[in-house]
Amino acid sequence: MPGVFITFEGGEGTGKSSHARDLAEVLRKAGRTVVLTREPGGSPSAEEVRALLVTGAVGRWSADAEALLNYAARDSHLRETIRPALARGDLVLCDRFMDSSRAYQGFAGGGDMALIDMLEQSIVGATRPQLTLILDVEPELGLARAKGRAGAAGVEDRFEKKGLAFHRKLREAFLAIAAKEPGRCRVIDSSRPYEAVSEDIKRAVASVVGLA
Amino acid sequence: MPGVFITFEGGEGTGKSSHARDLAEVLRKAGRTVVLTREPGGSPSAEEVRALLVTGAVGRWSADAEALLNYAARDSHLRETIRPALARGDLVLCDRFMDSSRAYQGFAGGGDMALIDMLEQSIVGATRPQLTLILDVEPELGLARAKGRAGAAGVEDRFEKKGLAFHRKLREAFLAIAAKEPGRCRVIDSSRPYEAVSEDIKRAVASVVGLA
Ligand SMILES: Nc1ncnc2c1ncn2[C@@H]1O[C@H](COP(=O)(O)OP(=O)(O)OP(=O)(O)O)[C@@H](O)[C@H]1O
Ligand SMILES: Nc1ncnc2c1ncn2[C@@H]1O[C@H](COP(=O)(O)OP(=O)(O)OP(=O)(O)O)[C@@H](O)[C@H]1O
Ligand SMILES: [Mg+2]
Ligand SMILES: [Mg+2]
Repeated sequence: MPGVFITFEGGEGTGKSSHARDLAEVLRKAGRTVVLTREPGGSPSAEEVRALLVTGAVGRWSADAEALLNYAARDSHLRETIRPALARGDLVLCDRFMDSSRAYQGFAGGGDMALIDMLEQSIVGATRPQLTLILDVEPELGLARAKGRAGAAGVEDRFEKKGLAFHRKLREAFLAIAAKEPGRCRVIDSSRPYEAVSEDIKRAVASVVGLA
Repeated sequence: MPGVFITFEGGEGTGKSSHARDLAEVLRKAGRTVVLTREPGGSPSAEEVRALLVTGAVGRWSADAEALLNYAARDSHLRETIRPALARGDLVLCDRFMDSSRAYQGFAGGGDMALIDMLEQSIVGATRPQLTLILDVEPELGLARAKGRAGAAGVEDRFEKKGLAFHRKLREAFLAIAAKEPGRCRVIDSSRPYEAVSEDIKRAVASVVGLA
């Protein structure tokens, strides 16, 4: 596919949505056609699944059911949004993707890892990101930032409620993914001032898309 | 588990819901504690997934995404409804279950059969039905009966819209499942008068639950 696929990953409040939005603006100003999207969601049907995942009681889904819902939404997102954009040659920036399934449902959630691996192969297939920016922050700081965040996302708190032990495992999981796939993943220390983080992200992206 | 688990399977309008309801009444009159439930659905969260599956445009989900949504709902249904009932020693009658995933998403839908097999192992596990009644009718007759059916189910028409070739494959799929697992499955010719079908169902169930 002629396009470029970049994902933002990390725990709660690590800055994924803010930096994805800012990067989209930078790239558009540089003349690129950018599709900024997010998971779970990113297509009309996938957004309906998102509502089932991010709201309601913490225990309403098992880790396996969460993985299945995420992958049903991801399939729709890939077919309706991501693959058409990549086929047009666009640059796709996605706020969370397959690594969140591995970290949230697999490593931290205790779900069936063999099932998640099979879903990744079957549903994502060859549409893997060229670059994954893993924003890394201590969970205490990330959760505090997430709570401070404004807007409608305040009701989307099902994962934020999962407790500190869960969020510590999440961080470990993302770092383990980065260690296993160093060619695709860059860990960015997001505990630093926002502008410093932004500069690192732009540098990492420049190596993939050739920013001026 | 001390309970008994019986499922009704078959294409559209083959009489699953009517016969499941009637059998529940017969068994309750015989003094059994019966949980009558259905798929997709059967628990509050699973019913929310059902709404995404049975309404809307035919092409809104791929066969694989449908399988994942069905299995996410099935996991919730098993944990919240079916397994607790079987653990109490109840008799569970379920209107559609795992064979519908094999037939609709796998055989007729063209989805990834290895994925469906893995989901069946991982999510259903040991909670397999002792008896599966496969109601068999020519698809033309079944679809005509389904259209004639009253009630709110009229808007749940996403699968009915899939066309006759799809429904012919469905029928083949259910018969193939029955041939492969003759110990669990009984094929019931549901083109006959309703009472004759009912009698056959009661006879098949008597062999499992010991009806008077
Ligand atoms: N480096 C930083 N320094 C200070 N504040 C930051 C920094 N990065 C992000 N923030 C703030 O933290 C909050 C959370 O950021 P953001 O919503 O982008 O995180 P997120 O990773 O998308 O969170 P979630 O996982 O909950 O979607 C925002 O208010 C954002 O402005
Ligand atoms: N043997 C029969 N003879 C005549 N009518 C029948 C027979 N069996 C069922 N019907 C009628 O066919 C219609 C469809 O039956 P029912 O709703 O029970 O099927 P179903 O398998 O649950 O359908 P769906 O797959 O759409 O849920 C109902 O109106 C029912 O009364
Ligand atoms: Mg965010
Ligand atoms: Mg029915």
